[in-house]
Amino acid sequence: MLNTPASAIRFPRLLLTGAGGNLGQVLRPRLKAYCDVLRVSHRRDLGLAAKGEEVHTASLEDADQMLALLDDVNAVVHMGGVSTEQPWAPILAGNIVGMVNLYEAARLKGVQRIVFASSNHVTGFYRQDEVVNTRMPPKPDGFYGLSKAFGEDLAQMYWDRWGIETVSLRIGSSFAEPKDRRMLATYLSYDDLERLVVAALTAPIVGHSIIYGMSDNQTTWWDNTHAQHIGYRPQDSSDVFRPAVEARQQHIDRQDPAAIYQGGAFVKATPHG
Amino acid sequence: MLNTPASAIRFPRLLLTGAGGNLGQVLRPRLKAYCDVLRVSHRRDLGLAAKGEEVHTASLEDADQMLALLDDVNAVVHMGGVSTEQPWAPILAGNIVGMVNLYEAARLKGVQRIVFASSNHVTGFYRQDEVVNTRMPPKPDGFYGLSKAFGEDLAQMYWDRWGIETVSLRIGSSFAEPKDRRMLATYLSYDDLERLVVAALTAPIVGHSIIYGMSDNQTTWWDNTHAQHIGYRPQDSSDVFRPAVEARQQHIDRQDPAAIYQGGAFVKATPHG
Amino acid sequence: MLNTPASAIRFPRLLLTGAGGNLGQVLRPRLKAYCDVLRVSHRRDLGLAAKGEEVHTASLEDADQMLALLDDVNAVVHMGGVSTEQPWAPILAGNIVGMVNLYEAARLKGVQRIVFASSNHVTGFYRQDEVVNTRMPPKPDGFYGLSKAFGEDLAQMYWDRWGIETVSLRIGSSFAEPKDRRMLATYLSYDDLERLVVAALTAPIVGHSIIYGMSDNQTTWWDNTHAQHIGYRPQDSSDVFRPAVEARQQHIDRQDPAAIYQGGAFVKATPHG
Amino acid sequence: MLNTPASAIRFPRLLLTGAGGNLGQVLRPRLKAYCDVLRVSHRRDLGLAAKGEEVHTASLEDADQMLALLDDVNAVVHMGGVSTEQPWAPILAGNIVGMVNLYEAARLKGVQRIVFASSNHVTGFYRQDEVVNTRMPPKPDGFYGLSKAFGEDLAQMYWDRWGIETVSLRIGSSFAEPKDRRMLATYLSYDDLERLVVAALTAPIVGHSIIYGMSDNQTTWWDNTHAQHIGYRPQDSSDVFRPAVEARQQHIDRQDPAAIYQGGAFVKATPHG
Amino acid sequence: MLNTPASAIRFPRLLLTGAGGNLGQVLRPRLKAYCDVLRVSHRRDLGLAAKGEEVHTASLEDADQMLALLDDVNAVVHMGGVSTEQPWAPILAGNIVGMVNLYEAARLKGVQRIVFASSNHVTGFYRQDEVVNTRMPPKPDGFYGLSKAFGEDLAQMYWDRWGIETVSLRIGSSFAEPKDRRMLATYLSYDDLERLVVAALTAPIVGHSIIYGMSDNQTTWWDNTHAQHIGYRPQDSSDVFRPAVEARQQHIDRQDPAAIYQGGAFVKATPHG
Amino acid sequence: MLNTPASAIRFPRLLLTGAGGNLGQVLRPRLKAYCDVLRVSHRRDLGLAAKGEEVHTASLEDADQMLALLDDVNAVVHMGGVSTEQPWAPILAGNIVGMVNLYEAARLKGVQRIVFASSNHVTGFYRQDEVVNTRMPPKPDGFYGLSKAFGEDLAQMYWDRWGIETVSLRIGSSFAEPKDRRMLATYLSYDDLERLVVAALTAPIVGHSIIYGMSDNQTTWWDNTHAQHIGYRPQDSSDVFRPAVEARQQHIDRQDPAAIYQGGAFVKATPHG
Repeated sequence: MLNTPASAIRFPRLLLTGAGGNLGQVLRPRLKAYCDVLRVSHRRDLGLAAKGEEVHTASLEDADQMLALLDDVNAVVHMGGVSTEQPWAPILAGNIVGMVNLYEAARLKGVQRIVFASSNHVTGFYRQDEVVNTRMPPKPDGFYGLSKAFGEDLAQMYWDRWGIETVSLRIGSSFAEPKDRRMLATYLSYDDLERLVVAALTAPIVGHSIIYGMSDNQTTWWDNTHAQHIGYRPQDSSDVFRPAVEARQQHIDRQDPAAIYQGGAFVKATPHG
Repeated sequence: MLNTPASAIRFPRLLLTGAGGNLGQVLRPRLKAYCDVLRVSHRRDLGLAAKGEEVHTASLEDADQMLALLDDVNAVVHMGGVSTEQPWAPILAGNIVGMVNLYEAARLKGVQRIVFASSNHVTGFYRQDEVVNTRMPPKPDGFYGLSKAFGEDLAQMYWDRWGIETVSLRIGSSFAEPKDRRMLATYLSYDDLERLVVAALTAPIVGHSIIYGMSDNQTTWWDNTHAQHIGYRPQDSSDVFRPAVEARQQHIDRQDPAAIYQGGAFVKATPHG
Repeated sequence: MLNTPASAIRFPRLLLTGAGGNLGQVLRPRLKAYCDVLRVSHRRDLGLAAKGEEVHTASLEDADQMLALLDDVNAVVHMGGVSTEQPWAPILAGNIVGMVNLYEAARLKGVQRIVFASSNHVTGFYRQDEVVNTRMPPKPDGFYGLSKAFGEDLAQMYWDRWGIETVSLRIGSSFAEPKDRRMLATYLSYDDLERLVVAALTAPIVGHSIIYGMSDNQTTWWDNTHAQHIGYRPQDSSDVFRPAVEARQQHIDRQDPAAIYQGGAFVKATPHG
Repeated sequence: MLNTPASAIRFPRLLLTGAGGNLGQVLRPRLKAYCDVLRVSHRRDLGLAAKGEEVHTASLEDADQMLALLDDVNAVVHMGGVSTEQPWAPILAGNIVGMVNLYEAARLKGVQRIVFASSNHVTGFYRQDEVVNTRMPPKPDGFYGLSKAFGEDLAQMYWDRWGIETVSLRIGSSFAEPKDRRMLATYLSYDDLERLVVAALTAPIVGHSIIYGMSDNQTTWWDNTHAQHIGYRPQDSSDVFRPAVEARQQHIDRQDPAAIYQGGAFVKATPHG
Repeated sequence: MLNTPASAIRFPRLLLTGAGGNLGQVLRPRLKAYCDVLRVSHRRDLGLAAKGEEVHTASLEDADQMLALLDDVNAVVHMGGVSTEQPWAPILAGNIVGMVNLYEAARLKGVQRIVFASSNHVTGFYRQDEVVNTRMPPKPDGFYGLSKAFGEDLAQMYWDRWGIETVSLRIGSSFAEPKDRRMLATYLSYDDLERLVVAALTAPIVGHSIIYGMSDNQTTWWDNTHAQHIGYRPQDSSDVFRPAVEARQQHIDRQDPAAIYQGGAFVKATPHG
Repeated sequence: MLNTPASAIRFPRLLLTGAGGNLGQVLRPRLKAYCDVLRVSHRRDLGLAAKGEEVHTASLEDADQMLALLDDVNAVVHMGGVSTEQPWAPILAGNIVGMVNLYEAARLKGVQRIVFASSNHVTGFYRQDEVVNTRMPPKPDGFYGLSKAFGEDLAQMYWDRWGIETVSLRIGSSFAEPKDRRMLATYLSYDDLERLVVAALTAPIVGHSIIYGMSDNQTTWWDNTHAQHIGYRPQDSSDVFRPAVEARQQHIDRQDPAAIYQGGAFVKATPHG
């Protein structure tokens, strides 16, 4: 949690979906600083509500539950759905059907801003020696990346058609620390994740904007020039972990697709069980 | 049907899906010139096979049927699925689930080339005073356009991951003649449709390529510069219909989204029943 | 005059300014085919009205005269103002003050479409071995080109702010025939001028669009890719005049700015008397 | 005033126009560090000259006064003219006629470098979720922005034609501190303004260059990539004011053009009294 | 030979190098129409001079011979040097050392225009499903393509430094007819070759320009947008040969680098004997 | 030498060519931190080997010596060859013939990564008011820059054809301190040079990448956006030297090509003795 909040904007009621997932758990305590009430949801029971919280159990593929979930909400931080490469069925349910349910609920309930956890895997089939910006065509590296590309296009359509604003965060690798040399490029610290989500929530005008979520890493494959209006400025870096990571992983197998492409191991995950 | 075939390349067995749909019916008799056996399929019974044809009834959302359908096929012209703006449920079934089934079947059966009927509605929320090329970000104008954007991304992924080649045809308005002033820009004659499909089938190397499907119209919103390797050269034009169309439709309501955006009336279709 | 009109769209009342100027005289008889009433104006008396005409004497720098002139007009073809490099004073009066008066009158009178005779001299300081498109920064070659750049920016502002549409025609060299080797690139035949003006008047949606006005010349410095939505397709070419022009002008002085830059002799005209 | 001068280059005689205006008053004491003699001018009497100063009263629309003003001057910092949205008449006088007078005087007197206070309002009709660079087409948000676009084109022409160098500063919001959330993006501190003007004066070769004038703000709409040769590096930021500004202005009215477009309230100022 | 000459410009003395090579033999009789005296050269004896010819034997790697060869010449069509993939030694001699000798001779003798036979193999490692323009980075496919990239850079340097103009022709496949499906894209008819060379010789201002040499083929990988100022307009096409070529070569081996990359078989030629 | 090594990656055997040259001497002691054995070479005798070193005398134009030199080497830092503008003969020998020998040796010996000392003089004929990125066409400023452009193209070809990776460093001015105002833009400190070389050696995947070698200077002409995957982040700056440099060199002669173009004095060096 940041010592100083990243913004003085406060929302009456903020919704965090996927609050029981990896990043949902990181964000749950942090987002309280930016709202009066934090509504949290997950497909599994989240237990008791903390002070200032409302706890919902809701499944993305259930349109009625989503409609109820978005009632009287000012903005959504959508971390729910599938977040790894998996067989098509759960991805379809959580990330395709679930996204349509979420945006239809937002449209019907008048929610005006969604921060959407997209993924760098939307462009995972670019090479690691290419620098990609947010306007280049998608090259998803599997069903998961494909479903996130779908989510971005959906968000674009709800903006053009219905005026609902979205910031799509193409999150890199948000962990306590980078685990390998690929993550020296993709690392997003938890504090920078908070900065990013808050910037996306509070930037005055965003339409549908796309931004890569990464810390201020020395090595990067992603160019956020077209997203500077969001006002995200990372303050951490993978560089403090570089000596240890490099010492552990001296060798790169340059014939391995996981080493060649930005998506890493995702590019060779087996699509079906 | 063209007097002279558009190519001397012949496929042993070609599959045409959606053969009972509007454009499927146009292409069915035309594609025979380019293959020994034309397999045609539709979700409804297509009746008896003509000479040189094999007739299948198959539903895109049925993975097993798709697997059987793609057996021993050299290339696919995929005109199946939903082709108009509709409620989400049928689009999900035909254009999302169906596309995954088709490409999984192609992967398992070793089919190497698919010509995919995408749509100009992938970019329907660009304005009619903008010229769009095939590398600019999607701006779908509804669930239908969104599903076609998904199809293109899927095709890109199957190329990057599995080496299956696709040409995504962003078809404009393929009718006997243009019906209104918008279609003076979007018109694709049936003969040019044949030229386009054949070029997409026979171009030696395509990876995943995207091309707008339009005749040689005086007015256009689409720039195919990046698709010149496909070798499509239209020979018809909407211009012969211009006097009649303009005489019929003198007035443009410039406040109407259907007049402002490239997607025309699709941009204001109601998403849900 | 074209044998077949370039469009079947008819305007109740069209205004042609500068009707006594070089291109005004060319367009005056041609525009009648596209309107019920052709209002023509010039700063000097134009004599008697032909059938279907209304004749006005009006000075661009007189705001009241402009207001009267635009009364009950559906669209304007603005050929008025200074059309050659001259001292600053007349350019200021006709092309700066006059343009503001014209657009203020259009705003107050509710005129929705203006076709503005801009000029290739807006970009006259690009070299003759560069290909320029309509989005590259202006490089005017003198006060005249500068005033036309102002006019384009004004038109952009009236579109963004007030919804008045303009097509800015960066006219090349519109004469009976090309006079020198530079004009082999810049030539715009009178018939193509008519096609261009009519396309600009009748294209359904233009916002503020810029297009270079040239025939289908073999040599060109200008790329109209971004203006294809206007539907202008030239049918003439300078090429039929090429042998005679080249025979007359064998030598190019490659040290002469008039030979180096697209603006030709304009780039070295003396700005002040 | 900077503790350490931003450059060790000294000019024998520097001219500051508009020395009595808001930014003129800020720059007047600061520019002394970079010249032997600072000539200051304004349309109103500026009172007594300080040490090392020469004080002139001169009106931009008076060509003779401008000619006298530029006599024996090495470089000009042109802060004069109208700096807010106003009716057309004063803008025409100060920013159109006045700019021509200034550059004609520079040409006749052999002045080789002008730093021109242009404005972000040259591109004020881009949206606040777009990132604009210095090569994109102008979208002025009113007469004021339009007059500054004219000034930039004029500067370009005097460079191409006469070799007079200009840096056009598209100044954001240069105040003691940012007043609202829009200014968190557009803020330019007075110290950074000094850095910017000095960089523009002292960069060895500038031709005609355009640069946005902003501090190192976390949120920005402007990309100065193409202006890095000028050597301007801001050292202040609006971010220290962010908590207070956001606390004061919690709400954004996203239907308000002043919130949507970069020009802020300028985009809806009434053009005529 | 064209029935009508491609230009009415005549040079007093034109030099054709490599006149005994494949394309040299094609051009030798054709270039006479454009000059009073055609000087032809080759490293081997060319036999007797035809009427209006001067015959020289000269080796590109001999600086003195080159100096003599360029004496009193108005322009050069440089078809000499190695024109296929070969071991490094002859390419070094003919295309590296020889090019320096040619341009040094041009500088010393005051020759102002060179038409340089570069090659599509400068960019032969782009894929056949990419469309390449003349500003994209080189990707040579072997020593031959590398030597032509060197030649283009040399020409650029002699233009920037010494004002010698060059048009670099990236010639595709100039044969009597296309031999395989790759050449349907790369074919340049002999008549179009003549049109191209003459346009490059006679365009008024070219600086250093690069243009791909191809006929008006339906399939193309190359975009000459930036070379339109040269005024080359092909009038032939590979399309008349398409049925025969496709009938002969039904199958493409899509694993073969010669099928994947634009350079065709050059991309897998062995570099060293 | 850096207090903390720039990377924890260690190579068993690293080759440094040109170890007796200016930058070779700077790098020789620094590179030891990144390898078990540092092989150093020069055309002249380098004297005794230091601990952990192997010393070779080898001439780039001798293919056999190069073959021996690259035996059992993991990566090469190629600082050898000519590094200033000189007559053509030594440049041909060292930078053309020598580069071919080096890469052929790498191919035959299985060396997988080369860090190549290219030069900013590859683009030295861009103006000092232009910002150049690594994808823009070369504009070499003399034979030296031309030879480095050749080297980059060669490296690109060995990557595309043989899978040998190269980072081409377009080194600015790497000296103990900047000597003049041009070097305020081009300065590369020795510590930053070490950071750059080490990043280029250790970045996991580079294909053929190009990067400008400069410190974090306030003024720059070069945009490394496309090279961010290399992970080079300068930590020094020319700015600490700015006051002294500017005080020494108050005047710029703006008519002098050495002041106008990025290559500085190289652009007017005489090519031949």
